[in-house]
Amino acid sequence: MELIYTGKTKDVFKLENELFLLKFKDDVTGENGVFDPGANTVGLTIDGAGLAGLKLTSFFYSKLNQLNVPTHYVEANFDEATMTVKPATVFGKGLEVICRFKAVGSFLRRYGAYATEGQDLDSFVEVTIKDDERLDPPISEDALAMLGILTHDEYAILKQRTIEISKFVAAELEKKGLTLYDIKLEFGRDAKTGEILLIDEISGGNMRAYQGDTYIEPLQLEKIMLAE
Amino acid sequence: MELIYTGKTKDVFKLENELFLLKFKDDVTGENGVFDPGANTVGLTIDGAGLAGLKLTSFFYSKLNQLNVPTHYVEANFDEATMTVKPATVFGKGLEVICRFKAVGSFLRRYGAYATEGQDLDSFVEVTIKDDERLDPPISEDALAMLGILTHDEYAILKQRTIEISKFVAAELEKKGLTLYDIKLEFGRDAKTGEILLIDEISGGNMRAYQGDTYIEPLQLEKIMLAE
Repeated sequence: MELIYTGKTKDVFKLENELFLLKFKDDVTGENGVFDPGANTVGLTIDGAGLAGLKLTSFFYSKLNQLNVPTHYVEANFDEATMTVKPATVFGKGLEVICRFKAVGSFLRRYGAYATEGQDLDSFVEVTIKDDERLDPPISEDALAMLGILTHDEYAILKQRTIEISKFVAAELEKKGLTLYDIKLEFGRDAKTGEILLIDEISGGNMRAYQGDTYIEPLQLEKIMLAE
Repeated sequence: MELIYTGKTKDVFKLENELFLLKFKDDVTGENGVFDPGANTVGLTIDGAGLAGLKLTSFFYSKLNQLNVPTHYVEANFDEATMTVKPATVFGKGLEVICRFKAVGSFLRRYGAYATEGQDLDSFVEVTIKDDERLDPPISEDALAMLGILTHDEYAILKQRTIEISKFVAAELEKKGLTLYDIKLEFGRDAKTGEILLIDEISGGNMRAYQGDTYIEPLQLEKIMLAE
């Protein structure tokens, strides 16, 4: 099993059967030892964070596959904290697609002149490019098309699918009395069919979930969501 | 004549006849004494900068009015360094609309992973909100619509008109052997008719003009463009 990529929160291995294996690590993004799903550096290590992220991802992706939303998810192995996925190529050097239901985080830092903290946003979608050096800048549909990263048609699919998936996640959280403030998704093209797939993970590490006014940490989120 | 607003590079007075008077100052934007059309602080004062800006603005806006492109321009008084304009209300707290023909400045700082310095861009349009405190962040069409700043229909008009005006300016520069790298425009609604108008100014202070590989400073630009 060949290690082909070492990510901030996951390592990627190539399997014999043309599939890939993601090994979830206990490293989480943040700054100065404080978890922040919007950060792009590893801020701290939390025992069990990898497995919790995998379990939540498996929970959401299994349901999405059943709903015929295309994802890269094949299966999960909780003993090894690994997930088997279909190969996919990312758009450009990787994009993050954010869906916002509440004005917090970087949205508020940019548009605080027009929005108040916690204000409802109507499943607002925006894209950022993965570029640690340039602090993951937001990018418009026109810029994505001009720079050859996404066509306008692909953008429309990505936006529609982001809203669909984010609303599904928000509804699952709501069943447990939680509110989804925002979520960050990643997409790629199926390496064989070219179909647009949801890739990466959906866990506490890429969303802000609240219970009333209280932010729910990733490990706590997994416990609440997967409690019998 | 009542002073109603003190801007970074212009003061605004209310006239008796429902029109307004813009007084062009010799302050230009920049940082640490170096002129930068992309900066949002006054960096230095250049003798004659106000009058040069007014003369170029008058040159471009007169031609645009003749081409039936709606602007707020009525007339200029070079002795007083003033320009009479129609009243207009800005979108939200003010927007800047940028048209880019070459990848430089903040575009390159954000998207340098996908573009090389000076690369041609196909009259790429993006909008920033005027907010000194938040460093004039870029904003997408969807965010503008969601925050009630612009409708999608108004965005389409703004974008189309920005391309039209920017290409016109680029063509005027080209007649003098100059290349337009990028330009920043402002629009508002005619206070009486609601029509979308080009407002503010078009001068060296809001564009990057080059002669070959040499950047042309605002005063020099005025001399080249208005030379008989």
